[in-house]
Amino acid sequence: MFAVEVSDHIMIAHSFRGAVFGPAQAVHGATFAVSVAFIAERLDRNGIVVDIGRAHEVLKQILGALNYRNLDDIPEFAGANTTTEFLTKHVFDRLGEAVRAGELGRDGGEIARIRVTIGESPVARAWYEAAVW
Amino acid sequence: MFAVEVSDHIMIAHSFRGAVFGPAQAVHGATFAVSVAFIAERLDRNGIVVDIGRAHEVLKQILGALNYRNLDDIPEFAGANTTTEFLTKHVFDRLGEAVRAGELGRDGGEIARIRVTIGESPVARAWYEAAVW
Amino acid sequence: MFAVEVSDHIMIAHSFRGAVFGPAQAVHGATFAVSVAFIAERLDRNGIVVDIGRAHEVLKQILGALNYRNLDDIPEFAGANTTTEFLTKHVFDRLGEAVRAGELGRDGGEIARIRVTIGESPVARAWYEAAVW
Amino acid sequence: MFAVEVSDHIMIAHSFRGAVFGPAQAVHGATFAVSVAFIAERLDRNGIVVDIGRAHEVLKQILGALNYRNLDDIPEFAGANTTTEFLTKHVFDRLGEAVRAGELGRDGGEIARIRVTIGESPVARAWYEAAVW
Amino acid sequence: MFAVEVSDHIMIAHSFRGAVFGPAQAVHGATFAVSVAFIAERLDRNGIVVDIGRAHEVLKQILGALNYRNLDDIPEFAGANTTTEFLTKHVFDRLGEAVRAGELGRDGGEIARIRVTIGESPVARAWYEAAVW
Amino acid sequence: MFAVEVSDHIMIAHSFRGAVFGPAQAVHGATFAVSVAFIAERLDRNGIVVDIGRAHEVLKQILGALNYRNLDDIPEFAGANTTTEFLTKHVFDRLGEAVRAGELGRDGGEIARIRVTIGESPVARAWYEAAVW
Repeated sequence: MFAVEVSDHIMIAHSFRGAVFGPAQAVHGATFAVSVAFIAERLDRNGIVVDIGRAHEVLKQILGALNYRNLDDIPEFAGANTTTEFLTKHVFDRLGEAVRAGELGRDGGEIARIRVTIGESPVARAWYEAAVW
Repeated sequence: MFAVEVSDHIMIAHSFRGAVFGPAQAVHGATFAVSVAFIAERLDRNGIVVDIGRAHEVLKQILGALNYRNLDDIPEFAGANTTTEFLTKHVFDRLGEAVRAGELGRDGGEIARIRVTIGESPVARAWYEAAVW
Repeated sequence: MFAVEVSDHIMIAHSFRGAVFGPAQAVHGATFAVSVAFIAERLDRNGIVVDIGRAHEVLKQILGALNYRNLDDIPEFAGANTTTEFLTKHVFDRLGEAVRAGELGRDGGEIARIRVTIGESPVARAWYEAAVW
Repeated sequence: MFAVEVSDHIMIAHSFRGAVFGPAQAVHGATFAVSVAFIAERLDRNGIVVDIGRAHEVLKQILGALNYRNLDDIPEFAGANTTTEFLTKHVFDRLGEAVRAGELGRDGGEIARIRVTIGESPVARAWYEAAVW
Repeated sequence: MFAVEVSDHIMIAHSFRGAVFGPAQAVHGATFAVSVAFIAERLDRNGIVVDIGRAHEVLKQILGALNYRNLDDIPEFAGANTTTEFLTKHVFDRLGEAVRAGELGRDGGEIARIRVTIGESPVARAWYEAAVW
Repeated sequence: MFAVEVSDHIMIAHSFRGAVFGPAQAVHGATFAVSVAFIAERLDRNGIVVDIGRAHEVLKQILGALNYRNLDDIPEFAGANTTTEFLTKHVFDRLGEAVRAGELGRDGGEIARIRVTIGESPVARAWYEAAVW
């Protein structure tokens, strides 16, 4: 399988509910380094997995809705803990929609899987990988 | 699949037996950058794969038995070459015991796989990944 | 000049006042990767600049007062924008006090300068360097 | 599965054909950071996946044919866009030949898979992974 | 002294003249990771060294004239070897003009020095630092 | 001032004497990531600070005397703690000799300063910088 991965980052605030989170129950924040990999069985006729320029744009658009925000204030996330792993799935879902809508510059059907990796600190990161279809 | 990965490091000495190791047959050493990923199908009700605080503690405890040691002197490793890949499996085995004993703050049965990655230098690393159960 | 530098990190929320900050005027956050370098003309009789273990502890203590906090709520910072560069000076000031109080395991008078570097994202960081005395 | 990964880099020029590449249709270049992972079910009797010294040498030899070259001038690549993902497959193919010829210091039949990862910039990379046999 | 540093990158082709360059006399290329630090004695009333958003924009504009180019074709560089260290000075000169023209969102006179660092590979980089005025 | 910096690494064992070192008094080890910067006022007529190829070779030769060794066994280091900061000075001294002997491919008199940086772990490093003459 081939993969192409592009990266960007956001700076957000949030808080968690649940004793397991200890001091992270207070409002704090994170710089999230976000990498998204598009995975396909074959390259297209241009020799690429996806148009890397569009991949950057689609990622920037998805992250733009979160960047410089307090995630506690985003209605879509009400009732959820916006943990790093939760956010990997959120970005995956938005990317899946973009792929299925053909926004990556290639027949979406040829993109098999997506992996989203989010680094929250020099010593912790999370990822989510699944099939697009 | 979701994954959460935490990282730590140790500084050890050791030597190898076997002509294949060339100059590394002498006593030398390494800073090992160790990352361990816990992999699960679903997040728990808190929205996490594992309690990241406990993950750091369990890893630190496992590595603590090796840190600042000459691995040639550790009875458990007698007769083995403590290569980077060998150590990925050693850390994996200890983590698997911790998961099965419920030490990661979640029903161990919900953690499917573990991947241990150890970097030995800017240009070499090893990993081991397998099912926990 | 010799230098020894140790690193740690914190995850905080904050907001800025001033049109220059654009969207960063809203409550957002950051993972700050903090490195502090102690600079001296000569090594001590042990062959070190400072006790690296104490350096990590002193840094952790200083950062502990900020970690998992909304910096907007810290009285000491009232009226200030807690920018990355502002925080380099804050950490420098606390470290300078520790050095002058002899907390680094060496006669503080032998430590000439301190440099504090804080990375806020993969593409932006700040530093502050000055004499301790 | 165990894996051992070694890394090297090359500095090349090339150009792409196809509107999808935008400004990259002009002659430009890249520093490619190349990592290759050898993946096996079991360690050999020395406790290794492959001889890491030979792995570095084989990789250097493969990359040597490309380093400091304009890839547009290499006959083998005529008619192809030498994209990062295309090159992951090229390196994979050469490594597969080396493994099957027993050049990695181990019975090639015991090496199951290879993954080649190429970073082209701080925010983009590609990889290819497949079975060797 | 305070510093704020922002980073970006470009992908270029070029060749060198002179036996000292060995194989790099042929047309090859590089991904240049470019970091530029603005250094000042004091923070401004907003608590910043420079407007980090403008710093990114000014850097992107300067690099945009080089990105995806064969530097051998740029008239301004005729007769020069566009080595990494040569380019640090080129970027420094352009940044100095921007600072003196007040494009960084602060009285340029308050910015004392600029340091430009360019990484060409995982094992080589260059920098240039000098006063702006 | 211009600088060109090249990097390499070594894997060594050693032990320290002195209560300040705690557990590091036992035989342990380190992967040392070593970067050396040559600093000059002006570029030479080729547009370089030093021949980067020679810089890599000279560094490799200096480090080769230490690589895969137990530093406790090296007579030159008898009675000294081979701390990271101690080793920065050792490498500096050897490099200074090479510069003064004209081994860097340029009139040594034009190289003003050298900085040696050694990373011992993801969270600790040391450096030494001084004039060559």
